[in-house]
Amino acid sequence: MSTRLSQLFVRTLREDPVDAEVASHRLLVRAGYIRRQAPGVFAWLPLGLKVRRKIEAVIREELEAFGAQEVLFPALLPREPYELTGRWTEYGDGIFRLKDRKDADYLLAPTHEEVFTLLVKDLYSSYKDLPLSLYQIQDKYRDEARPRAGLLRGREFSMKDSYSFDYTDAGLDLSYQQHRDAYERIFTRLGLEYVVVSADAGAMGGSKSEEFLHPTPIGEDTFVRSAGGYAANVEAYRTTPPEAQPIEGLPAPLVFDSPNTPTIDTLVALANEQQPRADRPWTAADTLKNIVLALTSIDGSRELVVVGLPGDRDVDMKRAEVAFAPAEVEPATEKDFAELAKLEGNPGFVKGYIGPWSPEGAVIGEKSATGVRFVLDPRVVDGTQWITGANVHEKHVLGLVAGRDFIADGTVEVADVRAGDPAPDGSGPIETARGMEIGHVFQLGRKYAEVLGLKVLDENGKLVTVTMGSYGIGVTRLMAAIAETTNDGKGLLWPKNISPFDVHIVAAGKDAVVFETAETLVGSLESAGLDVVFDDRPKVSPGVKFGDAELLGVPMIVIVGRDAANGMVEVWDRATNERTSTPVADVVAALTK
Amino acid sequence: MSTRLSQLFVRTLREDPVDAEVASHRLLVRAGYIRRQAPGVFAWLPLGLKVRRKIEAVIREELEAFGAQEVLFPALLPREPYELTGRWTEYGDGIFRLKDRKDADYLLAPTHEEVFTLLVKDLYSSYKDLPLSLYQIQDKYRDEARPRAGLLRGREFSMKDSYSFDYTDAGLDLSYQQHRDAYERIFTRLGLEYVVVSADAGAMGGSKSEEFLHPTPIGEDTFVRSAGGYAANVEAYRTTPPEAQPIEGLPAPLVFDSPNTPTIDTLVALANEQQPRADRPWTAADTLKNIVLALTSIDGSRELVVVGLPGDRDVDMKRAEVAFAPAEVEPATEKDFAELAKLEGNPGFVKGYIGPWSPEGAVIGEKSATGVRFVLDPRVVDGTQWITGANVHEKHVLGLVAGRDFIADGTVEVADVRAGDPAPDGSGPIETARGMEIGHVFQLGRKYAEVLGLKVLDENGKLVTVTMGSYGIGVTRLMAAIAETTNDGKGLLWPKNISPFDVHIVAAGKDAVVFETAETLVGSLESAGLDVVFDDRPKVSPGVKFGDAELLGVPMIVIVGRDAANGMVEVWDRATNERTSTPVADVVAALTK
Repeated sequence: MSTRLSQLFVRTLREDPVDAEVASHRLLVRAGYIRRQAPGVFAWLPLGLKVRRKIEAVIREELEAFGAQEVLFPALLPREPYELTGRWTEYGDGIFRLKDRKDADYLLAPTHEEVFTLLVKDLYSSYKDLPLSLYQIQDKYRDEARPRAGLLRGREFSMKDSYSFDYTDAGLDLSYQQHRDAYERIFTRLGLEYVVVSADAGAMGGSKSEEFLHPTPIGEDTFVRSAGGYAANVEAYRTTPPEAQPIEGLPAPLVFDSPNTPTIDTLVALANEQQPRADRPWTAADTLKNIVLALTSIDGSRELVVVGLPGDRDVDMKRAEVAFAPAEVEPATEKDFAELAKLEGNPGFVKGYIGPWSPEGAVIGEKSATGVRFVLDPRVVDGTQWITGANVHEKHVLGLVAGRDFIADGTVEVADVRAGDPAPDGSGPIETARGMEIGHVFQLGRKYAEVLGLKVLDENGKLVTVTMGSYGIGVTRLMAAIAETTNDGKGLLWPKNISPFDVHIVAAGKDAVVFETAETLVGSLESAGLDVVFDDRPKVSPGVKFGDAELLGVPMIVIVGRDAANGMVEVWDRATNERTSTPVADVVAALTK
Repeated sequence: MSTRLSQLFVRTLREDPVDAEVASHRLLVRAGYIRRQAPGVFAWLPLGLKVRRKIEAVIREELEAFGAQEVLFPALLPREPYELTGRWTEYGDGIFRLKDRKDADYLLAPTHEEVFTLLVKDLYSSYKDLPLSLYQIQDKYRDEARPRAGLLRGREFSMKDSYSFDYTDAGLDLSYQQHRDAYERIFTRLGLEYVVVSADAGAMGGSKSEEFLHPTPIGEDTFVRSAGGYAANVEAYRTTPPEAQPIEGLPAPLVFDSPNTPTIDTLVALANEQQPRADRPWTAADTLKNIVLALTSIDGSRELVVVGLPGDRDVDMKRAEVAFAPAEVEPATEKDFAELAKLEGNPGFVKGYIGPWSPEGAVIGEKSATGVRFVLDPRVVDGTQWITGANVHEKHVLGLVAGRDFIADGTVEVADVRAGDPAPDGSGPIETARGMEIGHVFQLGRKYAEVLGLKVLDENGKLVTVTMGSYGIGVTRLMAAIAETTNDGKGLLWPKNISPFDVHIVAAGKDAVVFETAETLVGSLESAGLDVVFDDRPKVSPGVKFGDAELLGVPMIVIVGRDAANGMVEVWDRATNERTSTPVADVVAALTK
């Protein structure tokens, strides 16, 4: 096949689009692959569509290799299935909703768990029908608050979503592994570096979840990893709790005046003046910071929760969102504090001096006088001693002992995670990095099947609920991620297996011999089975043509210039930037080797 | 390639879906090709998707053969471009509209003229860039009032829409012809009978338009054709006007009492009693029926128009809609008649007795006393004499002469079209038939380019407005049309080039030799490059397997039964229903011949 650049629907731009923040966005627009239609919504030009289709083909091949079957759902779906699982409401502002002429509710589906579940329920009824893996490559919609970075976070995007159906946990493990393996093969074939990180499965109600992150400074996700092989996204990182300490024999709490302690360091210094610990001086890690968070549940009700964590840590709101999902989390407001102050048995709850204890006993925790829920960072184990607020202006208490002086209602992972923290699997200290999510594998378990009634008869004729997995790859995002990684600043630079063409031939010069040689080369490369684009534009200077060739990103370029008269052309390998003078007769061999 | 039916995600149904009105809908659902998600919205199962992709491939090949290039637009588009062309409003209830979280208006695009125009404007600026034909295969949405017949009229459907861009009328003619030719090749390759009919270009503001109709009794369109080769949809049929007659010497109109004339025949009989025409008796075709229609324009204003047509014809509301587009048309209400009766100079306007004349002169027509617009069927030429109402209860007038006694404001094509009417090109009498629209080619002209400012520099450096064509094929509808035509009542029956598989092998029996022979055949057919589906279900009876094979619609079936022990199988050609006993060794040859 061959295409003449003079005929191809493409225009390169010299200027970066004004809204482009990242290289992939800049280059895909400048090279004429995509064009913006609305915020986060793009049209695909011939070159963009061609690369996209090649990526899709790789994904299809690897999924079908293990027996996954392709189906296709519409984007427009009725409200009912999403109502049954609660997601119609849970999605909040994040989805597009609309009504038809009969005033019935619809959505543009952001993901399809519900309808896949119902489809399998519609068709299948026996364990003999399982396992089953279905997938689709389909355009999805999300009403992102801040669409950005071109294809990296769009409001319309192509996604490959798969769903697996099994009737045993072991079956789900296998289906999950098949998808996970296929994803590894897909990203490897596409030449994209990835890290598989543990993800928190909580929000989707499932049991196991991993993300494929492509490490990149422009990634929206933070993940952690250890030299010993541990990797997780920050939301999934689990703190290693220290061992509990004996409580017996610890001194009683001491309330002390704490004026002029604007920082934790000043507070710690004062505590050490008042009464150092028996074994060592107090440090910032011995202070207990008590943060009041307001949780809004799906039904709209608001609960105030106090989170206690070491004073040298901050609350990471992303981790808090996952920890308290599906409720929404925000810091308590002044009004919330006023509510706390009205509670029976409250000791004052003065902002900046909040603590779980007053001289009368525990004041936070479901079993305490106020009944306010109190959850602790996992580091606050029984027998640990703390400096914390005494619920009175300019008063703190020291030597408050967990498990003796205050009552916790469980632990919570909201403290920030830092380089140097230990990997939970003992594989050493972690480092943090930025990544872009390119794939997600997920054991949903029986949540959707339960709610939507997907059951099959097992070997014993007993109805059992199906267990499911859900697996996603953002196709258009993946393309942007590849563009982001492979470009060399001057232009796109595609891996050979997804490049829109195999070879880009540039006729650099006006002489007849240049064009004749180029035409001959087009013919022989075509005959050799290569897909060729030929820059045949008669009045465009070689410099502009070279620039366009770099921008478009075909990895192999052949420059037919003055030397064509001597039977020589230049073969330019974009990846190494090497230009090799090559006899015309050897070009096919050089490019197909 | 081969697929085992036991592994394929498919379930056949014995019962027709309750809402299925047509064979294609019944069979595509029963054979497990599609599943309903909402009214007019379907999910595509593996078999359905496979056939759909093959149809798309045929379309792509034929379009790319003449240089059309594929792009892809989103379904979700902003309001603005559609606002500029007026279509945001014109579409009325027919489209899905929605808002994003910032309250901006969007639509799910029913067709993409606007954004293709803007895209070309964005990229191109010179006549050298033209001609250009772009296309996409994309899911479209229309909020149909009555989605019906499965894929034949859905609210979500896949459409191939192309747009051509030229800077001369001759160029547009060529681009139009290229599309038209490609469409002929596409429908021919898909084995679908079609008639190319002239269509009315009015509503889209263009100049030339033809529809590809597939003749079928379940078609929603009526078209007319003559033995001599004329074909048009009913909306586009143009009446051949008779020659005008000399007015001089015709008798003056005669008002007469017309009680007890409930029908046109009784009125004609009475007129002949009163005063026959000089040359012949009056007939029903000599009566002038004056119908008041109410037109609602896009801006909401309402106009009453009187349409005069021969009394032996009725108003065809579909033709009226096209004739008065973009205004909406309905019969006048009682309230409208009351408005007419209030007009200055009105002669009474009694319903049932409305006429364009009273003894004082013309009473309808923009230049008449009332100023009401009056349009005439093309048969009402100057010098023709009419019997019509006298605007008074139980009074008619005869011998009213067109061009003498009443003033027309032009002609209009709203009278119904009947078998036996003359083809406008003189190719003989027409017959009427039902058809289903499967393609549409359209010269849009400069309307969209004008409004959206798509101009290029011509050879003389002058800015000229681009002229466009718009060309559509309903892909999913096309698939249903093929299913509708090719099925044999027992099941689907695909043309070979779009069948989901080349061969359907049925293991009919429980003996080991049956399965062994079938497996061997699968292998050899695969090696011969055929795509095989193998019904390997161990516990399903041959009868059920045959039924399923018929339902699924693969045109060639191989039955491996008891005779396998003797090295013989049956090759079943669904199209001819012939079953040929064939040696196993000859099956590949029989199927690849």
